[in-house]
Amino acid sequence: MTLSMYQAAIPPLIHTLSNLVGILEKGGAYAEAKKIEPEVLLSTRLYPDMFPLTRQIQIASDIARRGTARLADMEAPSMDDNESSFPELSNRLKETINYLNNFNPEQIDGSETKSISLTVGQETLTFDGQSFLLYFILPNVYFHVTTAYDILRHCGVELGKRDYLGKQKS
Amino acid sequence: MTLSMYQAAIPPLIHTLSNLVGILEKGGAYAEAKKIEPEVLLSTRLYPDMFPLTRQIQIASDIARRGTARLADMEAPSMDDNESSFPELSNRLKETINYLNNFNPEQIDGSETKSISLTVGQETLTFDGQSFLLYFILPNVYFHVTTAYDILRHCGVELGKRDYLGKQKS
Repeated sequence: MTLSMYQAAIPPLIHTLSNLVGILEKGGAYAEAKKIEPEVLLSTRLYPDMFPLTRQIQIASDIARRGTARLADMEAPSMDDNESSFPELSNRLKETINYLNNFNPEQIDGSETKSISLTVGQETLTFDGQSFLLYFILPNVYFHVTTAYDILRHCGVELGKRDYLGKQKS
Repeated sequence: MTLSMYQAAIPPLIHTLSNLVGILEKGGAYAEAKKIEPEVLLSTRLYPDMFPLTRQIQIASDIARRGTARLADMEAPSMDDNESSFPELSNRLKETINYLNNFNPEQIDGSETKSISLTVGQETLTFDGQSFLLYFILPNVYFHVTTAYDILRHCGVELGKRDYLGKQKS
């Protein structure tokens, strides 16, 4: 037995984005309880030239959607980047999760050796499908989910590792 | 073709811990250039009840070492948690990388269905090997590498996504 590309990609991405929905819900509840304008949390950055919370969520969604679409040789639906509240960002994540849920294993399996090129900034990166998943999609999505968590923790939202790891998958 | 457990675990962990060595080197160089006591950066937390930078590095090392040892039915070497400088933390990561480099694929492959129990706090979690890798080891290690990056960015160290993702693996 070995791992399939589908198993290594789709359920873990759905899992971490679902956990991020829960993290955002705690962020929204905290803003309400403390009478903080949600916009204050959504625009918080850990440093002036880092992205604010809203953008962290959008990018986590984009990489999950576009990355898996590339593995399946599809074009991911674009999203408008116009969310301005916790519920709107949660909805974006739920739409992303729906998108991921619609993949059949056959659309992703076998993509290990597929050649994938993408332009990041002024650079063109070329991967095989396996490296694209293991060295680009997964670390990138975990980066933005963790940074969203870190921003909310930094603002005082009571979150723990359990919120990030989610309900145990065994 | 499919992914092997070894391919999904060992090279990505080595890659991200190597990137973390580079991130720490930039942190140490920044402290020196700005005449900041390294201890100030190493003890920085994003919130009072979060772990400081030093502990983030130690945990990233521990989960990588102990997690992969569990997949291989081995006992990971313990480390003393006594690092007090950037070079000492880099050395811990390099020892961890050496440990990971010594696994043969045969020691990890086939662990997909192995039953793995671990105690986290007061709870016992039980996974199969595949879930342990995909839902515990990888997201956890990426969490602590990203949080180390976020702490240093928050302190003003000039880091970019490239430092986190590392040299492209294609």
